[in-house]
Amino acid sequence: MNDPEPEPISGAESLIQTLIDSGVDTCFANPGTSEMHFVVALDKVPAMRPVLGLFEGTVTGMADGYGRMADKPAVTLLHLGSGLGNGIANLHNARRAQTPIINVIGDHATYHQQWDTPLKSDIVGLARPVSAWVHSSESAHTVAADAARAVAAARAAPGGVATLILPADAAWGRANRPAPPIAVPAPAIVTDSAIDDAVAMLRSGQRTVILTRGPTLRERGLTALGRIAAATGARIMADLLAPRIERGAGRVAIERVPYRAETALEQFRDVANLILVGTHPPVAAFAYPDYPSWFLPDGIAIHYLAHEHEDGTAALEAVADALGAAPDTAKRISLSLPDRPTGGLDQFSIGALIARHLPEGAIISEESATNSLGPTTATIAAPPHDWMGNAGGAIGQGIPVAAGAAVACPGRKVVSIQADGSAMYTLQTLWTQAREKLDCVTVIFSNRSYSILKIELDRVGARNPGPRALSMFDIGNPDLDWRQLARGMGVEADRVETIEQFEAAFADAMKRPGPRLIEAIID
Amino acid sequence: MNDPEPEPISGAESLIQTLIDSGVDTCFANPGTSEMHFVVALDKVPAMRPVLGLFEGTVTGMADGYGRMADKPAVTLLHLGSGLGNGIANLHNARRAQTPIINVIGDHATYHQQWDTPLKSDIVGLARPVSAWVHSSESAHTVAADAARAVAAARAAPGGVATLILPADAAWGRANRPAPPIAVPAPAIVTDSAIDDAVAMLRSGQRTVILTRGPTLRERGLTALGRIAAATGARIMADLLAPRIERGAGRVAIERVPYRAETALEQFRDVANLILVGTHPPVAAFAYPDYPSWFLPDGIAIHYLAHEHEDGTAALEAVADALGAAPDTAKRISLSLPDRPTGGLDQFSIGALIARHLPEGAIISEESATNSLGPTTATIAAPPHDWMGNAGGAIGQGIPVAAGAAVACPGRKVVSIQADGSAMYTLQTLWTQAREKLDCVTVIFSNRSYSILKIELDRVGARNPGPRALSMFDIGNPDLDWRQLARGMGVEADRVETIEQFEAAFADAMKRPGPRLIEAIID
Repeated sequence: MNDPEPEPISGAESLIQTLIDSGVDTCFANPGTSEMHFVVALDKVPAMRPVLGLFEGTVTGMADGYGRMADKPAVTLLHLGSGLGNGIANLHNARRAQTPIINVIGDHATYHQQWDTPLKSDIVGLARPVSAWVHSSESAHTVAADAARAVAAARAAPGGVATLILPADAAWGRANRPAPPIAVPAPAIVTDSAIDDAVAMLRSGQRTVILTRGPTLRERGLTALGRIAAATGARIMADLLAPRIERGAGRVAIERVPYRAETALEQFRDVANLILVGTHPPVAAFAYPDYPSWFLPDGIAIHYLAHEHEDGTAALEAVADALGAAPDTAKRISLSLPDRPTGGLDQFSIGALIARHLPEGAIISEESATNSLGPTTATIAAPPHDWMGNAGGAIGQGIPVAAGAAVACPGRKVVSIQADGSAMYTLQTLWTQAREKLDCVTVIFSNRSYSILKIELDRVGARNPGPRALSMFDIGNPDLDWRQLARGMGVEADRVETIEQFEAAFADAMKRPGPRLIEAIID
Repeated sequence: MNDPEPEPISGAESLIQTLIDSGVDTCFANPGTSEMHFVVALDKVPAMRPVLGLFEGTVTGMADGYGRMADKPAVTLLHLGSGLGNGIANLHNARRAQTPIINVIGDHATYHQQWDTPLKSDIVGLARPVSAWVHSSESAHTVAADAARAVAAARAAPGGVATLILPADAAWGRANRPAPPIAVPAPAIVTDSAIDDAVAMLRSGQRTVILTRGPTLRERGLTALGRIAAATGARIMADLLAPRIERGAGRVAIERVPYRAETALEQFRDVANLILVGTHPPVAAFAYPDYPSWFLPDGIAIHYLAHEHEDGTAALEAVADALGAAPDTAKRISLSLPDRPTGGLDQFSIGALIARHLPEGAIISEESATNSLGPTTATIAAPPHDWMGNAGGAIGQGIPVAAGAAVACPGRKVVSIQADGSAMYTLQTLWTQAREKLDCVTVIFSNRSYSILKIELDRVGARNPGPRALSMFDIGNPDLDWRQLARGMGVEADRVETIEQFEAAFADAMKRPGPRLIEAIID
């Protein structure tokens, strides 16, 4: 007896089932006409969870936050080149964060592409700058295999955005089967000679810095770094824009490269050796006429212990072992909460109150621009938490990354520490937080200003700004009312102006499920 | 005696002065660090009016609306590749609208680009798909000349997006002088033989359609079209997604190509000749499995009377003259207002009320998706007005295009007729409307649904959607509250559920200066 003929499936079903079989089970979506068959297939493959965003920048930002916390990709669903365009800024950040994402973009049917219809655009051209891998499916028969390859491309170390363009007829056409998963190769193992060179530098007695970024900033890598620091006195540092760091009590503390060139130059002035693990030599984010872009002193020896796609954590453990550093020698942070603040509401009092009320295992999404110092320093010895910064510098990632993290990690409180100007770029995410009942708390630093640009203005040598220049940094005319903006999207919101008000609102928000928004009025 | 040495100016000043000298005096901006010298130069060249947007999609959409109404380009100011990314969807629409725009994107200093800093991206690669012209300035000495060339490129018929990438050191470096304007060539004149061929078709006695798009949809072109129609019985039609049409009492009425393939196929079924003026043969916006993408019958004769860059208006006048059609023979619409509606609030009652209260010379920005039929038909014989539709299909253009039109046309009332789902893409524009006290009234069709996708779902053959598919079209869980969203950005807002409430709010809004938002709750 022959097996019964399998029920025919659409290309879209074969794609979604392939993703499920490859471990991808969450879809952040903002679909249009060309994605309808993907949408309908969601009911055929119920293991895929769809999460709707009302703007593509929220979709790609959520996929970034999800991928950083889940350590596996989500899939996006975007509509043509214009939908991709709206998602580009947060895909840029995801690229810099090395977040695995399966970025699915619907396209016109293959036979329809001969005409220059209104929504036609160069999707491949737009996708390439933000993608590690780009492919456009030719037919329903190849979609499943293409999806399996996309997952492999996204998950290959160090992780990246794999863009799969899905013509409408490839989605609606008949496919024969899903494709089996592709084994994801482990990160490359660093050679013994690279380990030996690092060990020699660390034993030289010269000032040595280990600078790192990526998965090394989690428990295993930090422990190895702590052991090396304890054994050799080396300084251990993370890039300023690290995608995710495990921080707080019980963890190993790590310095950050400063934003300001003048401070960074000072930090690296006497350093003889720089060991790089998954990152590049530190340079200024922007050029400034009065400062060099390059932060390192002449004559410094630079050693790439591990490149981004190599196993930096294992390399650091090998170095620690070679140095004879015992496993329990890493210095760990003891729980220490800041004193209850007094005085006015500002980034320092807010930071202290966040630290005092932060629950263990919280996830922080930080995009607070000029108000980052207070929360960053106050939480160093707070209960253990994950800290996600803006990895690529494109503003408008904080709230969606928080939402994606909440989808990835149910049961963990997610706190957005957010500048008001940046929050406006992807405020639509608040609606998804409400719809999905995500446990997100957004703290808006409401200073009604692009304050960072006032600082940058002087630093780039653009002195004596006139009133029209200054008006370009003033977002307080009229004032944004974040309470109304949040409530307009179904998110409970408070507006606070004093320490007492902030503490009452934040402490309550830590105890009850979110979403919630607290607008903190500061100068 | 020698002339005194001219005071040195920065590259940014030379750029802005060149733009002013070339007739470009409005700047829609969302700057960052790399654009600080441009911002400071705004005080040195006070003839340039800066208008701040809180998101780049509002900036590029405003520049589109401005250009469509002012018939000259505005300049944008965007921050690096990620800022450009946020502006791409509305640049796509501007490209399709053939709107002249000087699209200035700040970049890292030339010597800084050797490092892969966080915000570095392939700006040229991202700009190319939405630009008619792309150039990256090499130094402060060439910026002014580059700006003059950008204006010429943007203004060359039919008009387009000219992207000028401005490295920070080209902005802050010393320039010697602004550059003189470049003469903009007139559109190419259509040959006599092309005129003769059109005349022959129109005299053939066969069913003939003239299909057009672009500047022909203004008074001169419409009059010529009306003369031809009166003399020959030819049907005159505009593309569905025309960027701007002069409509209403006193104007010549023109049909529109239908959105639905089945209706369009019917419209063109018996047509023997198609004369194209500034457009292409009509095809479906999307492919549908059950309908052809190509709308025209076999054997139809297609004649390109004027291509997009040629002077279609002059060609139509030449055809009308050759036909002996007298200047006053064009049939014009008489003022005729719909009856006062009764019953429930829907697109038809709202359309009637808009028509009844629309002031002469109003500008309508329409992006109402499934609710467009009511307002479109009701206003055919309303007081004369300009009608701007979504020219490229990327949603989120309606509110910014309205804002840009209000900047271009002070003294004229601007009405946005806007779907709620689309409005969410660029809602930040409401803040700019409040800040600049723009005379804009936004009518939100609040049906809490991506209704168009429910229709498209069936049309693409994706039948029997399940609950998860349907949830992707439901943006009513939770409901958006547009009153709060608008007030949160400083815009006065009403929420109406009945005809009486809508009429009271809309009539009042037509009498008082804006901005204002009316959320109309409909099914």
